[in-house]
Amino acid sequence: MTGGPLFKRVALIGIGHLGSSIAHAIRKHGLADEIAASARTEATLETAKRLGIADVTDIDPAKAAAGADLVILCAPLGAYAGLAEAIGPALKAGAILTDIGSAKQCAVRDVAPHVPEGVHFIPSHPVAGQEHSGPESGFAELFEDRFCVMTPLPDSDPAVIDRLVRFWKGCGMDVEFMDPAHHDLVLALTSHLPHLIAYSIVGTADDLETDLKSEVIRYSAGGFRDFTRIAGSNPVMWRDIFLNNREAVLEVLGRFNEDLSALQRAVRRGDGQALEDFFTRTRDIRRKVVAAKQA
Amino acid sequence: MTGGPLFKRVALIGIGHLGSSIAHAIRKHGLADEIAASARTEATLETAKRLGIADVTDIDPAKAAAGADLVILCAPLGAYAGLAEAIGPALKAGAILTDIGSAKQCAVRDVAPHVPEGVHFIPSHPVAGQEHSGPESGFAELFEDRFCVMTPLPDSDPAVIDRLVRFWKGCGMDVEFMDPAHHDLVLALTSHLPHLIAYSIVGTADDLETDLKSEVIRYSAGGFRDFTRIAGSNPVMWRDIFLNNREAVLEVLGRFNEDLSALQRAVRRGDGQALEDFFTRTRDIRRKVVAAKQA
Repeated sequence: MTGGPLFKRVALIGIGHLGSSIAHAIRKHGLADEIAASARTEATLETAKRLGIADVTDIDPAKAAAGADLVILCAPLGAYAGLAEAIGPALKAGAILTDIGSAKQCAVRDVAPHVPEGVHFIPSHPVAGQEHSGPESGFAELFEDRFCVMTPLPDSDPAVIDRLVRFWKGCGMDVEFMDPAHHDLVLALTSHLPHLIAYSIVGTADDLETDLKSEVIRYSAGGFRDFTRIAGSNPVMWRDIFLNNREAVLEVLGRFNEDLSALQRAVRRGDGQALEDFFTRTRDIRRKVVAAKQA
Repeated sequence: MTGGPLFKRVALIGIGHLGSSIAHAIRKHGLADEIAASARTEATLETAKRLGIADVTDIDPAKAAAGADLVILCAPLGAYAGLAEAIGPALKAGAILTDIGSAKQCAVRDVAPHVPEGVHFIPSHPVAGQEHSGPESGFAELFEDRFCVMTPLPDSDPAVIDRLVRFWKGCGMDVEFMDPAHHDLVLALTSHLPHLIAYSIVGTADDLETDLKSEVIRYSAGGFRDFTRIAGSNPVMWRDIFLNNREAVLEVLGRFNEDLSALQRAVRRGDGQALEDFFTRTRDIRRKVVAAKQA
């Protein structure tokens, strides 16, 4: 089988920024013969066809999923239960079902009950993505040098896991395994908390009187713009992440609030040594991120 | 004078990331015949000479500033008073003295008392800069399409202000005027608060046990890496900003804390509509930043 596509037919249930990027990666790396796609609107499916990233489309997710060897849920977490229930009966025996969601305990909770006997459900999280939305924003290189975290279930078949590993690696990613709860804690800190904070500070700016708000935008190159990038992400996707990884987010938010209070006290007291020491420590973390090629 | 250099000799007191970027811009755009530079160490001055961004160097800031038509303080805010006192007696009659500091009330407070009669002190803040430090990190294009905020004193000569405006525009920037207190509030929100928050969240990660910390670095592409970039900035420069713009920083930090508490409550209560509404508002701000070409 060397060199041939890993799958005959991949079905993407949802074809927004992530889904379309996966489709581009499948095309670029020849990972499947055929791509089927479903979406909430016909307009999105027409765009996907026009972009050449879907061979077959159907507004009915069950019809798009039927006959696929690999089905990937590429929708907001809040849609998982309904989609899993809809596609479950249509899934082919032996098919692999995975997803791209940013929280994994809820993915198991909402999807697993609807997976029929003989179908392999293995949750995945490609840790990649930009602030853009919609099928036109996707591109194959999104995944290069990024990590995909897989959280197989205790009874997952190693041969099936390996096949999915080859798929994600084929997209350009490194693959790591975690249990779902650990994944959710790590991502709460590396992704969910930064987003919550970015949303918050950009909201603070949005509450300002009009004149000051336009100045904030004008002078955003001083640091604010980096937060607006994150805070420009898909509102529904992020609503669902916070609703579905609540405990881990509140846990790391508590830690963050303690640290921010300590910095606030140092500013109030004019404790220059404490500030300099703190900022020197954080610069080391930046250097490690750069060294890990994640910058 | 059309086409000729604006100044015969520009002296840069400090030649780190910002100072060396100014030197590159002077060279690229032909804004001065000669660049003099001072720095805290001979090693930095040797680097500046090797890079070809200084014609004359002197470890003594007064000697570097002597005879210059334009003198720019490019050092951390905490060094301003000492540097102004040192160079004051050496400044040429008719010279313009400016700076690049991120807080302007303290610049006036610390520098103005040392400026001799006949020398024009006009504070400036080019709102540009990356997380890098040192003379080797400078480049001329840093200023292109960025804003320079000038905060002239009430008695500043309009013809002199205009000459400095032409200098900053010559570097590629748009110039705006503000009073120092307003500048300090706008920058507290657009730059100082984002930095404080980024330092805080990166510090939270640094406090984690070793295994979890390495995972945070590995999966930083989910959002955290954007914060590490900001939190990789020069520790001494940022220590001095927080020490010298304390009131404005604490004011906007208070507003931010209120907003974060509101989001925290929405997460805890599972209030999806509030979260989605909030995230939709912040996405609009991102679009305005992109439209203002500050993204």
